[in-house]
Amino acid sequence: MEYTIFGESHGPAVGVTLTGVPSGLELDMAGLERELSRRAGGRSPLSTARREEDRVEVLSGLFQGRTTGTPLTLVIRNADRRSGDYERLKDLPRPSHGDYAGWVRYGGFGDYRGGGHFSGRLTAPLTAAGAVAKQLLALRGVWVGAHIASIAGIFDAGLDAVRGQRDLLEAAAAKEFPVLDDGAGERMRQAILEARAQGDSVGGSIQCAVGGLPAGMGAPDLDENAEGIFARHLFAVPAVKGLEFGAGFGLCAMRGSQANDPFRMEEGRVRTLTNHAGGINGGITNGMPVVFTAALRPTPSIAREQDTVDLSSGENARLSVRGRHDPCIVHRAVPVIEAAAALAACQLLRL
Amino acid sequence: MEYTIFGESHGPAVGVTLTGVPSGLELDMAGLERELSRRAGGRSPLSTARREEDRVEVLSGLFQGRTTGTPLTLVIRNADRRSGDYERLKDLPRPSHGDYAGWVRYGGFGDYRGGGHFSGRLTAPLTAAGAVAKQLLALRGVWVGAHIASIAGIFDAGLDAVRGQRDLLEAAAAKEFPVLDDGAGERMRQAILEARAQGDSVGGSIQCAVGGLPAGMGAPDLDENAEGIFARHLFAVPAVKGLEFGAGFGLCAMRGSQANDPFRMEEGRVRTLTNHAGGINGGITNGMPVVFTAALRPTPSIAREQDTVDLSSGENARLSVRGRHDPCIVHRAVPVIEAAAALAACQLLRL
Amino acid sequence: MEYTIFGESHGPAVGVTLTGVPSGLELDMAGLERELSRRAGGRSPLSTARREEDRVEVLSGLFQGRTTGTPLTLVIRNADRRSGDYERLKDLPRPSHGDYAGWVRYGGFGDYRGGGHFSGRLTAPLTAAGAVAKQLLALRGVWVGAHIASIAGIFDAGLDAVRGQRDLLEAAAAKEFPVLDDGAGERMRQAILEARAQGDSVGGSIQCAVGGLPAGMGAPDLDENAEGIFARHLFAVPAVKGLEFGAGFGLCAMRGSQANDPFRMEEGRVRTLTNHAGGINGGITNGMPVVFTAALRPTPSIAREQDTVDLSSGENARLSVRGRHDPCIVHRAVPVIEAAAALAACQLLRL
Amino acid sequence: MEYTIFGESHGPAVGVTLTGVPSGLELDMAGLERELSRRAGGRSPLSTARREEDRVEVLSGLFQGRTTGTPLTLVIRNADRRSGDYERLKDLPRPSHGDYAGWVRYGGFGDYRGGGHFSGRLTAPLTAAGAVAKQLLALRGVWVGAHIASIAGIFDAGLDAVRGQRDLLEAAAAKEFPVLDDGAGERMRQAILEARAQGDSVGGSIQCAVGGLPAGMGAPDLDENAEGIFARHLFAVPAVKGLEFGAGFGLCAMRGSQANDPFRMEEGRVRTLTNHAGGINGGITNGMPVVFTAALRPTPSIAREQDTVDLSSGENARLSVRGRHDPCIVHRAVPVIEAAAALAACQLLRL
Repeated sequence: MEYTIFGESHGPAVGVTLTGVPSGLELDMAGLERELSRRAGGRSPLSTARREEDRVEVLSGLFQGRTTGTPLTLVIRNADRRSGDYERLKDLPRPSHGDYAGWVRYGGFGDYRGGGHFSGRLTAPLTAAGAVAKQLLALRGVWVGAHIASIAGIFDAGLDAVRGQRDLLEAAAAKEFPVLDDGAGERMRQAILEARAQGDSVGGSIQCAVGGLPAGMGAPDLDENAEGIFARHLFAVPAVKGLEFGAGFGLCAMRGSQANDPFRMEEGRVRTLTNHAGGINGGITNGMPVVFTAALRPTPSIAREQDTVDLSSGENARLSVRGRHDPCIVHRAVPVIEAAAALAACQLLRL
Repeated sequence: MEYTIFGESHGPAVGVTLTGVPSGLELDMAGLERELSRRAGGRSPLSTARREEDRVEVLSGLFQGRTTGTPLTLVIRNADRRSGDYERLKDLPRPSHGDYAGWVRYGGFGDYRGGGHFSGRLTAPLTAAGAVAKQLLALRGVWVGAHIASIAGIFDAGLDAVRGQRDLLEAAAAKEFPVLDDGAGERMRQAILEARAQGDSVGGSIQCAVGGLPAGMGAPDLDENAEGIFARHLFAVPAVKGLEFGAGFGLCAMRGSQANDPFRMEEGRVRTLTNHAGGINGGITNGMPVVFTAALRPTPSIAREQDTVDLSSGENARLSVRGRHDPCIVHRAVPVIEAAAALAACQLLRL
Repeated sequence: MEYTIFGESHGPAVGVTLTGVPSGLELDMAGLERELSRRAGGRSPLSTARREEDRVEVLSGLFQGRTTGTPLTLVIRNADRRSGDYERLKDLPRPSHGDYAGWVRYGGFGDYRGGGHFSGRLTAPLTAAGAVAKQLLALRGVWVGAHIASIAGIFDAGLDAVRGQRDLLEAAAAKEFPVLDDGAGERMRQAILEARAQGDSVGGSIQCAVGGLPAGMGAPDLDENAEGIFARHLFAVPAVKGLEFGAGFGLCAMRGSQANDPFRMEEGRVRTLTNHAGGINGGITNGMPVVFTAALRPTPSIAREQDTVDLSSGENARLSVRGRHDPCIVHRAVPVIEAAAALAACQLLRL
Repeated sequence: MEYTIFGESHGPAVGVTLTGVPSGLELDMAGLERELSRRAGGRSPLSTARREEDRVEVLSGLFQGRTTGTPLTLVIRNADRRSGDYERLKDLPRPSHGDYAGWVRYGGFGDYRGGGHFSGRLTAPLTAAGAVAKQLLALRGVWVGAHIASIAGIFDAGLDAVRGQRDLLEAAAAKEFPVLDDGAGERMRQAILEARAQGDSVGGSIQCAVGGLPAGMGAPDLDENAEGIFARHLFAVPAVKGLEFGAGFGLCAMRGSQANDPFRMEEGRVRTLTNHAGGINGGITNGMPVVFTAALRPTPSIAREQDTVDLSSGENARLSVRGRHDPCIVHRAVPVIEAAAALAACQLLRL
């Protein structure tokens, strides 16, 4: 299963074309829209005021409620567009946004309204594609769950990587603010509101577990490496700037005797007592949950005035982004990270 | 340029087949072997006692000293093989090594001697391939340099990501122990020797810069995302368990106003005043050095006795790895990380 | 540039998602619809009675009339659907149609109405994608033209492969029935009408030229072989069952001294006096027009009663296809073959 | 399973790196060399006088006689090299050989001795790779067989495409000159010797059957189309200029009622009474043997004097190729075509 995300923030629609979707999947459209509503903004002061209904139209690949096996195209129309907000920014790239790099890459022909194809709005079709992936995985006993690991330096409780703790992650997913520890969650919210009040934004991290994957998926090679496959999908999520498996960067300061995950037989299966490797050894799954953490940068669009350049004149300039922006996208990104992980898991399983 | 690494630690040879190498490159074989000697072990108590000459034989793709443009195959014969050391380990997978996952993946048909295809020895042809990539990049003004960022929790001086500091990295590369700050390096060595004395190993991290890349390379999409391309190559390096661009995980606790890299005109070019994004915005290079840090886990092969299972009997077992192993591979991995980065940069530049 | 065709004959829409389209192309929508009208049916007794307007909606990748460089999605709504015609055929696969093979492949979950994703209707988005490709190629001086080479054993005049004869092909393209020799064309029409009267269909072949390609594109390898690239795109066109470059199968009975295309300098450029190789040597273009001929089988959907099997009962059965079908698709396929050739040429040129 | 052929005719070696080879295959090296000896020249006046032993060295991917699942590299050393023969041709491209196109493609850096990477010698590692593929296929009940369909306009008996006639093809394979009808074969030999005596060469065609493939393999799409997959592998074989499935170009002059292959139940399985489609409908196998014919051009290297250009001076020139050449490569190409078909079948079966 491969996917191509298309669309622009202020174009007629965003969408995704999925190829290689196994046939016969009874697509749960309500489940799909549930995932979309998890990422939707416009519902609280923690997020952008842009409000989209995110209704999914299926253009192809579905017949009598089931996937046909031929390309599945999902389209989400853009409704709440206020393009005027952006006209002013045309020549003033927002620092650390894709504006400038995209301007060079596409020779200035990109749609500059709301970030165009670089907009966070493109995570809507990604989430929809991931929801399809999750439904496929569920039939094979594979589940995906995530929670906010940190926002603005405030940490949620950690996951027990050996057990995966699907129940905790499902409980978190049902929350408006998906954390394991609601106390930490409350402090995170405050930090977001505080940043917002100051015309600023905050970053954070998301921890994700994929359980039920069999051992032996992946390979040490460049194209089939399990970590590489997850990385390919995760770094394509806007704002992700770091990725670590298992104990990740923590391993750098550990001894081998601490880091190594001892094997033990458990009910006839090989298991590890710890899961510092995050379920992957030598590029191949070892049967333990795949656990990773993704680092998300603070939203680059902030109200505060910033230094930039004017691409039309080639001179230094100042910029203050108005429009409607998220002071933090980490909480909204939880289902997006899950979606990318689910799509990666499908690739790993050759679905 | 794509590459396929082949070979097993105790098979006749390791090597690499590169396709899409631009024709006409005058291959500097001495430069190639210089890179190989940077990663070679057998020279100090900091590394394995296995000693290989690592002479490169070119089987194809080179004519009159220049690349032909058709596949380039480089072969390095294995000489110092002591396979007997490994026979005992056949059914006892080393914790956190690829042994068990590979055993499942390949149905037990893998070459178990010295880790087979999962051996660190396979980084020799990777380094050779990377040396070819570096020579190609040099013709286009692109350079790659790296240093040990940390070992066993001891940190080297940090790189100035805006300036890239090629001179410092080149000076480090010339050292047997590639750090910027030799005092920190000395403490790292002590930590390695201490771990070795205790039959243990240590991990660390490597910071790498790729300078001279033009802005506008990459795309937001799944296959061409600049971060995804680097990640694909980096996670294929054994022991890499984490990867971050620019300030990476540090961005999680930053405000947007701190994290954003302000643009400024400098000698007619758009530059940023900081480089927290590591030279990539929206999956596309922005013209600043691409700077990333990779986390490397401690070597899993340690002399200390560990818990494992016996795959032939399906029972719990104990394991003590003898053979010749590295108490730390971070210092030897510096040219390997550079190699993977150079190969990634070639992909990004469509070389 | 890669493309994914999606849709089903009787679903809401057919369409295509193109990735890697160079940015800044001023898309000539009228040109696009002109190509679509060349392949449209419903205009004469030579074709199906199904009549579609084939209006193209651009969902993404176009801004202010120019391509943005990010995915371009074109959608054509299905209007004239009479699904009832097909319900009866659900379990009776049409001989030599994709019905049965697709039923096995997709486990019976395909959309059986009008062939679903296997319908000739899917050549509409292919033609639209090809029209985009043609506009890109035109900017680089590359043109694509084709004519009916034969229908029902009646042959059109042959093309002079050395000269390419763009003018003749353009004149043919403007005709409702694209032949070089209208006398032959009239005999072909009669053969089609005769077959139609007998509830039967006829096959034919299409000769296509791609002019203006520089020498040196392609490679001898599996993925970049110029002939392989054209073949990949051409065999994905429904009904194509054979493909030959230059003199093709005629070369089998030739001597080397006849078949070889002698080189000669002409206005400072290397040219060949003949073009039996169809512009490709060793998998690489040689600067002469790429000329190929594709064999198209007769439409499998015919009114005559045929032997088939009933997939629901596993018993032999008889089938008479009603619905609206083409007695010949060769004349409608001319722009489709051109489209596939244009898309192949873009891949060859790494557009 | 993907493969990369490497090497040059007069370099140290030719070889192939195969990735994705399933593990545990007990490689029959004698079978491998048997295939190589089928394609070897140097044994009769029908072929080149160059005589190579073609011993296969396995550099990687084989352990205790079985494939490990990690890359398999096979190397064949070049022994009988007489490079002096070619020095003279350096600037005089042979008409219809890859010399000129390759010179442009690779900027004149290719190995010009004996055609370099464009040499027919590269079909040796292709044949070896195909032999591996055949052994994998045999375990799944899939077989591949081919015969000379024509040489110099003289036709062998045709294959019954419905039955596949494996026994006849195996008998042909055992012959030095692989035809079904030895009388036709004798006339072909005479035609070859006659051409040789006149300093000329002849072309021909090869018919190939792949039996035992299950129905439902492939897809209508660009990358998975069964015909496209075979085409990709077949057009990468030097000298192939045409390819047709089943009745192929013969379908152009047939009516639908003649061309359609009626379905019928046979021992509980769906079969067709004829096999004009060559076992593929809509890009997907239908369970019948895949049967195709490939057109091979006459060897371009002939002793007769020909027109060419001098690339060093940019002037017209005359050329007479001496060296050791084949007056016909069709009979030697039979195992090569089988090899390409076997590799295609592996791709189709996702092996």
